[in-house]
Amino acid sequence: MTKTNEIPYKIYLSEEEMPTQYYNVRADMINKPAPLLNPGTGEPMKAEELEAVFCKELVQQELDNDTRYIDIPEEIREFYKMYRPSPLVRAYCLEKKLDTPAEIYYKYEGGNTSGSHKLNSAIAQAYYAKKQGLKGVTTETGAGQWGTALSMACSYFDLECDVYMVKVSYEQKPFRRDVMRTYGATVTPSPSETTEVGKKILAEHPGTTGSLGCAISEAVESAVSREGYRYVLGSVLNQVLLHQSVIGQETKIALEKYGIEPDMIIGCCGGGSNFGGLISPFMGEKIRGEKDYRIIGVEPASCPSLTRGKYAYDFCDTGMVCPLAKMYTLGSGFIPSPNHAGGLRYHGMSGIISQLYDDGLIEARSYEQTEVFKAAVEFARVEGTLPAPESSHAIKAAIDEALKCKETGEKKVIVLGLTGTGYFDMVAYQKYLDGEMDDYIPTDEELEKGFATLPPIEG
Amino acid sequence: MTKTNEIPYKIYLSEEEMPTQYYNVRADMINKPAPLLNPGTGEPMKAEELEAVFCKELVQQELDNDTRYIDIPEEIREFYKMYRPSPLVRAYCLEKKLDTPAEIYYKYEGGNTSGSHKLNSAIAQAYYAKKQGLKGVTTETGAGQWGTALSMACSYFDLECDVYMVKVSYEQKPFRRDVMRTYGATVTPSPSETTEVGKKILAEHPGTTGSLGCAISEAVESAVSREGYRYVLGSVLNQVLLHQSVIGQETKIALEKYGIEPDMIIGCCGGGSNFGGLISPFMGEKIRGEKDYRIIGVEPASCPSLTRGKYAYDFCDTGMVCPLAKMYTLGSGFIPSPNHAGGLRYHGMSGIISQLYDDGLIEARSYEQTEVFKAAVEFARVEGTLPAPESSHAIKAAIDEALKCKETGEKKVIVLGLTGTGYFDMVAYQKYLDGEMDDYIPTDEELEKGFATLPPIEG
Repeated sequence: MTKTNEIPYKIYLSEEEMPTQYYNVRADMINKPAPLLNPGTGEPMKAEELEAVFCKELVQQELDNDTRYIDIPEEIREFYKMYRPSPLVRAYCLEKKLDTPAEIYYKYEGGNTSGSHKLNSAIAQAYYAKKQGLKGVTTETGAGQWGTALSMACSYFDLECDVYMVKVSYEQKPFRRDVMRTYGATVTPSPSETTEVGKKILAEHPGTTGSLGCAISEAVESAVSREGYRYVLGSVLNQVLLHQSVIGQETKIALEKYGIEPDMIIGCCGGGSNFGGLISPFMGEKIRGEKDYRIIGVEPASCPSLTRGKYAYDFCDTGMVCPLAKMYTLGSGFIPSPNHAGGLRYHGMSGIISQLYDDGLIEARSYEQTEVFKAAVEFARVEGTLPAPESSHAIKAAIDEALKCKETGEKKVIVLGLTGTGYFDMVAYQKYLDGEMDDYIPTDEELEKGFATLPPIEG
Repeated sequence: MTKTNEIPYKIYLSEEEMPTQYYNVRADMINKPAPLLNPGTGEPMKAEELEAVFCKELVQQELDNDTRYIDIPEEIREFYKMYRPSPLVRAYCLEKKLDTPAEIYYKYEGGNTSGSHKLNSAIAQAYYAKKQGLKGVTTETGAGQWGTALSMACSYFDLECDVYMVKVSYEQKPFRRDVMRTYGATVTPSPSETTEVGKKILAEHPGTTGSLGCAISEAVESAVSREGYRYVLGSVLNQVLLHQSVIGQETKIALEKYGIEPDMIIGCCGGGSNFGGLISPFMGEKIRGEKDYRIIGVEPASCPSLTRGKYAYDFCDTGMVCPLAKMYTLGSGFIPSPNHAGGLRYHGMSGIISQLYDDGLIEARSYEQTEVFKAAVEFARVEGTLPAPESSHAIKAAIDEALKCKETGEKKVIVLGLTGTGYFDMVAYQKYLDGEMDDYIPTDEELEKGFATLPPIEG
């Protein structure tokens, strides 16, 4: 509860108030996330093994379960100052529309050219690659958000950036491709003839339009087979959640600046990086027993890794070249609905989020597409900003909570993460507006097929 | 010149510092802009005549050459607080890249969902329409920026919004169309069967893909032929420049907050609304002799209304239904190059800007497309933000001025208006990246053809 008259529409921090350290929530966790396993030996991956694929300093961050605060290098903080702090916005107009006594705040990460929070980790990963003296980095991208963010980051540090873009997206989203090219990235439709794995897949499936799993395999091969290159990833990994902690820290500082005490923190969950970053400092307080927030992760009913998945070791990619990770998962063989809009369709979930959920520290819920887009349009029409479909899952949950407050008369304070702009998902909005959007919930049988692809490893 | 150490990357104003009044630069002008003329009688348009087409209070603003400050109604200021103030950004990284002693600042208006400054006037026009008790407004849109902004504004005030969208854009830019629909607007491809003028044009040119002139005519007919509707326009008019004065005022307050004394203000010129808004308070000081800024308008060499046009009365639309305006113009029959990217292809220029230019208070220059996109990419790669092609004309001029400073060693302070994001013009970027961009400068003969369409009226 807050004295509302004092709160502006948008709370900005000054440069001096911006966080200077990443917040590593693993330092607070009683049960640490399970280690990555070598898919060949089943043994925990050693730093040396990971360093063949990832940048050295990022491997250290990946494995560090103890250091609560990790300094953000000056060079990264300078870049953050160009597009951060992001605003914490009081959704006055939405509150009024809902006629709720609740207060709703959203942390908006879509204001930069990449259109999402992905840039927060991209710039950090590019920095560490540059510092290591590398020539360039490789990655995969589906819809293109991560690829765009990484291109911007590499351009800034004058680093080569090779993006393997799922072929169907490459062809259907030429604008995304050309944004990356504008920032100097090389964009290759995947599968391609530039890698052995790409050639193999093309030989076996000549007409394939590609998949994220295949693009990951190509990007990894492209990195490890050349001198001076490493592979980078935009979600799921511990290091990515660490970098995204700037979201949660800025949110917390902004709230404290105005004496606002949140009751619940709500975020959407795909791989878990934005959600993990948003909740990190709040989760720390919760674990230490200093505060008792409700922390709610929201996922699509069509890809329900937390709400209907299993907590087990699984392959991170369909090509099975990456280490095994213990996570809430639907199985790497789970096939998400082709009608599913936006991101949030990864079969697994960040190991950190998975462990916190397993420990009962996070609530999870899922929504179907149509109700999510209904909430998105309702939000856009009163708040102005057009939300990304991913973010709109969090909006839907926040609206539901605010309407509960209307019934009970409680003046709860709701904070949600608005991770990106909806500009790049107008095809999905069009389907919603034309009444052509399909809702889809996998049957138990379909889930069982996914679970059947889990590797036989006890976690 | 400024003490640079103190300046953050981005200067934000607090809500309390935001302007509460529009700044009407006409009050400062010695020679007022010429009146609009009735195309039938050749007499100055009376308020009553204009009120048949435009909202009553907007007509007053259109005709008011005397009131320097006009209060911004509370309701509009509340909306501004959702997406304003826009940041004034110090382009530290561009300065470093250019190795210039100059300081470069840009006022970035592309951070809202409409992607440009157009929202500043859209919300004002929607407010006055609502206040007048109207049911809705009509307008035309080409690429869709203005239509998007107006849709957002009408959605906020619960007002109907009928947008006539040039058919070729309607078909080639379905995303823009669907953003407008998301905000509840009705979008009709023009020419259409919904108006008499549309039917007539379709009968005469069955395969036509439309034009802005035709869409204007349809929007005006649709407004005047129905009870409770008015027509609104996103540029050129005095009222629009008035609303856009929030840009210049915020810029001025931000500069003063840090004791920064600009030497030159640079903006791109299409219809003149963003440029007019940006320069307004600075121009006031210049006219009153309090300061001596260089004020530079930049236009494309392919549509050079200021640098090669005539100062004369002309038709505002190709359908010739609108009042006649005295302006720097290429003639309403001038056909801009089909290869020309982005906006800035209107045949004429705001009457205010035209008069100020004629009075020698503004410098004008033009650039060809390729050099503009080169500057845009250079900017994006170091500053992060991807600029709109329109805005990139101002960036090109700013870079040129900064490089002059490098030669002379002068520490000039350059302020430029960055009106929008380049997201929606990736086709143009793609052409540039692929070396397929055409430069085009109209020949004197081609200009003469345009001038031949000027009406025989002495101004």
